[in-house]
Amino acid sequence: MAKLNWGMIGGGKGSQIGPAHRMGAQADGLFTLSAGALDHNPDAGRAYARELGVDESRAYGDWQEMLEGEQGREDRVDLVTVATPNATHFEITKAFLEAGFNVLCEKPMTMTVEEGEEIVRIAAASDRICAVNYCYSAYPMVREMREMVRTGQIGKVRLIVASFSHGHHGDAADADNPRVRWRYDPDMAGVSGQFADCGIHALHMASFVAGDQVRSLSADFASTIASRELEDDAMVNFRMEGGTVGRLWTSSVAIGRQHGFDIQVFGETGGMRWASEQPNQVFYTPVGGRTQIMEKGEGGLSSEAQRLSRVAIAHPEGFPLAVANIYVDLAAAIRGEVRDGLPTAEDGLRSMAAVHQAVASAKADGAWVDARPPMMR
Amino acid sequence: MAKLNWGMIGGGKGSQIGPAHRMGAQADGLFTLSAGALDHNPDAGRAYARELGVDESRAYGDWQEMLEGEQGREDRVDLVTVATPNATHFEITKAFLEAGFNVLCEKPMTMTVEEGEEIVRIAAASDRICAVNYCYSAYPMVREMREMVRTGQIGKVRLIVASFSHGHHGDAADADNPRVRWRYDPDMAGVSGQFADCGIHALHMASFVAGDQVRSLSADFASTIASRELEDDAMVNFRMEGGTVGRLWTSSVAIGRQHGFDIQVFGETGGMRWASEQPNQVFYTPVGGRTQIMEKGEGGLSSEAQRLSRVAIAHPEGFPLAVANIYVDLAAAIRGEVRDGLPTAEDGLRSMAAVHQAVASAKADGAWVDARPPMMR
Amino acid sequence: MAKLNWGMIGGGKGSQIGPAHRMGAQADGLFTLSAGALDHNPDAGRAYARELGVDESRAYGDWQEMLEGEQGREDRVDLVTVATPNATHFEITKAFLEAGFNVLCEKPMTMTVEEGEEIVRIAAASDRICAVNYCYSAYPMVREMREMVRTGQIGKVRLIVASFSHGHHGDAADADNPRVRWRYDPDMAGVSGQFADCGIHALHMASFVAGDQVRSLSADFASTIASRELEDDAMVNFRMEGGTVGRLWTSSVAIGRQHGFDIQVFGETGGMRWASEQPNQVFYTPVGGRTQIMEKGEGGLSSEAQRLSRVAIAHPEGFPLAVANIYVDLAAAIRGEVRDGLPTAEDGLRSMAAVHQAVASAKADGAWVDARPPMMR
Amino acid sequence: MAKLNWGMIGGGKGSQIGPAHRMGAQADGLFTLSAGALDHNPDAGRAYARELGVDESRAYGDWQEMLEGEQGREDRVDLVTVATPNATHFEITKAFLEAGFNVLCEKPMTMTVEEGEEIVRIAAASDRICAVNYCYSAYPMVREMREMVRTGQIGKVRLIVASFSHGHHGDAADADNPRVRWRYDPDMAGVSGQFADCGIHALHMASFVAGDQVRSLSADFASTIASRELEDDAMVNFRMEGGTVGRLWTSSVAIGRQHGFDIQVFGETGGMRWASEQPNQVFYTPVGGRTQIMEKGEGGLSSEAQRLSRVAIAHPEGFPLAVANIYVDLAAAIRGEVRDGLPTAEDGLRSMAAVHQAVASAKADGAWVDARPPMMR
Repeated sequence: MAKLNWGMIGGGKGSQIGPAHRMGAQADGLFTLSAGALDHNPDAGRAYARELGVDESRAYGDWQEMLEGEQGREDRVDLVTVATPNATHFEITKAFLEAGFNVLCEKPMTMTVEEGEEIVRIAAASDRICAVNYCYSAYPMVREMREMVRTGQIGKVRLIVASFSHGHHGDAADADNPRVRWRYDPDMAGVSGQFADCGIHALHMASFVAGDQVRSLSADFASTIASRELEDDAMVNFRMEGGTVGRLWTSSVAIGRQHGFDIQVFGETGGMRWASEQPNQVFYTPVGGRTQIMEKGEGGLSSEAQRLSRVAIAHPEGFPLAVANIYVDLAAAIRGEVRDGLPTAEDGLRSMAAVHQAVASAKADGAWVDARPPMMR
Repeated sequence: MAKLNWGMIGGGKGSQIGPAHRMGAQADGLFTLSAGALDHNPDAGRAYARELGVDESRAYGDWQEMLEGEQGREDRVDLVTVATPNATHFEITKAFLEAGFNVLCEKPMTMTVEEGEEIVRIAAASDRICAVNYCYSAYPMVREMREMVRTGQIGKVRLIVASFSHGHHGDAADADNPRVRWRYDPDMAGVSGQFADCGIHALHMASFVAGDQVRSLSADFASTIASRELEDDAMVNFRMEGGTVGRLWTSSVAIGRQHGFDIQVFGETGGMRWASEQPNQVFYTPVGGRTQIMEKGEGGLSSEAQRLSRVAIAHPEGFPLAVANIYVDLAAAIRGEVRDGLPTAEDGLRSMAAVHQAVASAKADGAWVDARPPMMR
Repeated sequence: MAKLNWGMIGGGKGSQIGPAHRMGAQADGLFTLSAGALDHNPDAGRAYARELGVDESRAYGDWQEMLEGEQGREDRVDLVTVATPNATHFEITKAFLEAGFNVLCEKPMTMTVEEGEEIVRIAAASDRICAVNYCYSAYPMVREMREMVRTGQIGKVRLIVASFSHGHHGDAADADNPRVRWRYDPDMAGVSGQFADCGIHALHMASFVAGDQVRSLSADFASTIASRELEDDAMVNFRMEGGTVGRLWTSSVAIGRQHGFDIQVFGETGGMRWASEQPNQVFYTPVGGRTQIMEKGEGGLSSEAQRLSRVAIAHPEGFPLAVANIYVDLAAAIRGEVRDGLPTAEDGLRSMAAVHQAVASAKADGAWVDARPPMMR
Repeated sequence: MAKLNWGMIGGGKGSQIGPAHRMGAQADGLFTLSAGALDHNPDAGRAYARELGVDESRAYGDWQEMLEGEQGREDRVDLVTVATPNATHFEITKAFLEAGFNVLCEKPMTMTVEEGEEIVRIAAASDRICAVNYCYSAYPMVREMREMVRTGQIGKVRLIVASFSHGHHGDAADADNPRVRWRYDPDMAGVSGQFADCGIHALHMASFVAGDQVRSLSADFASTIASRELEDDAMVNFRMEGGTVGRLWTSSVAIGRQHGFDIQVFGETGGMRWASEQPNQVFYTPVGGRTQIMEKGEGGLSSEAQRLSRVAIAHPEGFPLAVANIYVDLAAAIRGEVRDGLPTAEDGLRSMAAVHQAVASAKADGAWVDARPPMMR
């Protein structure tokens, strides 16, 4: 199978997310980095692309140049990854989709609900893939949980409790640290801080595992460091379409929690929990029975979990390979296979609606609001 | 030091809480069980008391008989423990307090806020002790956390996240099991199910560790098993007098969580967490530093933590000895020493107010309400 | 049921083991401390006994006085606990046994194998109980493991791996600390340091859980702190009568291990592990299946485990209540019931033989030696 | 930086180790799979190579063909990975080394000590790299431990306790399973079963972290499943050149242990432990202090640990990226940089000597033997 051609926008030298995408795309030998506009500084971006092995003719200075250059080629990239600053995701994703490219967009897909609806419409009207990088959903054992729900192994889901709470912004002395400050400044981060940054990963996972969508929510936001305009801690209660009760806590001042993303799913006949810091296990308890430690790679897991594991049981696989699993699914989808686990523009839109509605609820003292984007009500 | 005389009401044969109190009172040789009205069946109660070594003359048929019998004695009991069904706590506690006895009442102290205020007034007007058995607060490492807050080791407390969520009522087939059913029936349990049963332990501990009180709250209650009139799952957001943000989740349908009581406390300069299933450790993280595992019995702990430990480091001490620590403090208080860690009638009243206000908030779609009892506003 | 009369020798003010025995004997209301010779200083011992509620006439100055005083009484103590320095265990245990008392002796029961054999003969010839305080074997979940082996739930036991390795003597600066130094000085500790102090608990547990005895062993001893004459770290490989392979590591320089006593048992059809720092769980794995977390107090445990638990599932019970379980079994045995879990003089003798033979093996570069006492070969 | 050309021998379709190497070599974009002889079936090997993107001219039928083909090319592969059945490692490694190629050989490097010495001599006489895939040593936190020892953070190392004990061959019914059986058959596996298969990873790590070599050892081998000629469980005690005491347990019948590779290192002023199932943490305890949880990616780690991490703190990195770290070091070494963490032919030889000497010791009832290869004595 020939490798697919891949292009990347953003993710330049020194970025966190760039190497994760490059490992993700290349680890399984599925994609070749064939084009890139990697930096807001055109020369730096071109130089870094060449350093990464991109041909000089496809080392672009900015995304517009890349769009123009790739459009005309027979060997144009099969997939474009958008890993630029958040506020630019919308226009780049839109432009490439409209030009007929498959796109993987970093989260958040857009800054507004209206933009999100526009992307969903464009993607629906095209036959292109528009995916959003909710990469945690691609861990094998997260897929396993989803299959367990789908096949009724824990019965109807009554309750989901998720958190994505770390402590890395817990030092008030970091108030002026530019890597921290922008996240709590509405001019740069938009309407929400921590909930938009981390909380939506947890909200997406709740929907993903439950196979259901959030219908309504009530939010309590707090800026525990007073100088922050946006929230650094949030609690969101929600209800899903099928009646599942949801509780989601997200924080960036939870000192001592390192990654702090975990989910607990409780159904009529069993419960399960998973944590991103130990992603290769699920703790599953049938009602009235003992807790069982499920291991990635053990016999009897779903084909979905097996398909996305690479090494034998108890050989841990980590975050970069979860990202790689998104690319595994993208490669398959580009080749025409159905990959219904791949997070889509609809997911990106739902997150954006949830963020805006949570902000509205928090401002209204926790009033319950419709969590859905207008076009999905 | 002569042993103190101790009397018990309730806690008869087959009860869970009875043995815990007897171990608690006797483990350190501080109290002798001298009197008892142990069962709602007078004969069974008298027989069991004699079996436990109580003199025939002080093996009573009911609490009224015990009140009358003990009042007249020179060697009357120094302490009465009330471990009867919840709805009777108020009248028994009131009667014994008014007759000049020291009382340890099981939680909940009363069923209504008004009753709670009455007990507080009676206790305040007397020179007797009225304690409520929030026994988790007597674990040595919980006391250590409180001392750490008090002495500024984690700075001002920004955020407390607590849960008391188990899965032991998660089987819908138990709907008719009498040991489960009454808890969700307002005729027997009062206005609240799981929050009143378990949640208030967590709420008390939040206040206890923070050294602060809850001022306002917003609640989301759910009956995830539809046949239940009262909630089996609840989320309560709160704010403390000093501004601390609080989040409390309690559930009885969290299948796979066995005890599920834990607390996380996040301050300006550090965070810490403790879980009742591993009660001899605290995980403490200074801001910007590594998580440290603190051990009961290690060098350098507060005198309060040392005082309430019995065996050397890493020899685990469990739940019955936390109850025993309540009795250690009671014995000291009866002898006139100051024991400010002892949970009091004020704590019992605050819990009752929080329960009733959480119910009101939940009914009002999560509206924020004053959590304080009227007499403390 | 009237309380039994209990006497204690040693365990005076400031000792670690004294309070553990008093809690153990009294927690369940089974024994009353009726007599004591608690201190090597007669006056201090008498004073402390009275402080603990012992009648003046039975607050003795030394064990000989106590033996004489109790022998003549109609209400003589039903049980004597010997918690004196190690070198005195033999003569005191012997004297009381010969005078017709039931005895619980702290470990090690004796200093030599010959003494051990003498105690075994005396105990066998009498109808008295001679128990040795291998208290870890009385944890409910340790009893559960033993029942699982006994009833074939993991098949024939192939392999046992145990460790009792802590780091509390890991600081060379403690070389002159009298609480540490004596343990590595043959004049005070005998032929072995860490193996005799901690290792034999693990060796006893291996036999206890397997329901089998150690037949041969090979030892590697090390004094990792060079100034120590006796070993502070030891590895003992062994074989049991039934062929089970055993491996036992014990250390006092394993810095960071707090208690460090754990056991893993592997059979033909399953494996299990238990650790003293989390004593209320057993991790059990059927061959080819998932690891299951067994909880003290869960449904379906053996009657033996149920009998020795006091509070509900996931309410932790700790070390003092394991000691209390030894007293529960003693009370039953004194009343004539069969309690085959109670560690006996035979166990004490086997430990002593294992210690001496391990020393011999270590001196012979790990040569395999018979681990059994001569009278049991 | 242009990618290096990489060739692979073995690791064909369906093998476990093949994908691990391909991910390892490609994840960071350092190597391109340019040539391969991937299968013992020449046609299958050629077809799979082409499927993986290898040019038809370099998709070889066997290693001899590949040696001949690559030798003549200007763009010959910069590195050859040997991932064939164990018994062929020696001849292939030897042939490629002698032809001037850099080689990464899977473990065991050879089947005999003599062969190992020959490889060491050939490698020393050439200017080529001969590395052996002790990939666990390339985890960032393992490198961190080594740096901690090197810089004296735990003082002189007194004691190392390692285990690599799993339960995946614990089912006697697998006796005829060909994937299991060969491992315990001397005709196929050589002189040792489990110790050669897993134990030497642990032994290498002990040396690696301590920065010292094993001088002598004593072994106890057992075939707990009687039909096995070679050991499925082994305990090896050892001493290092600098006096460190070592204890190593390895098993394949430890049912319930999934991967089961961990190491504990105890020095004069601190201890640390690491486990392969949670490879991103080290638990470090300074003598007299609290245990600290060190996290991959935290501030202040050694440059060595930082260099080999890819994603931020608490984003787990797993086994395939440890393999990738071997390739990171290989790429650097090929370019002439010093990478003293890279496992070498000397390491491969030492392992082989330890295996053969452990077998000899086990046959001699655990006699202590020199663990070193003759040429290093």
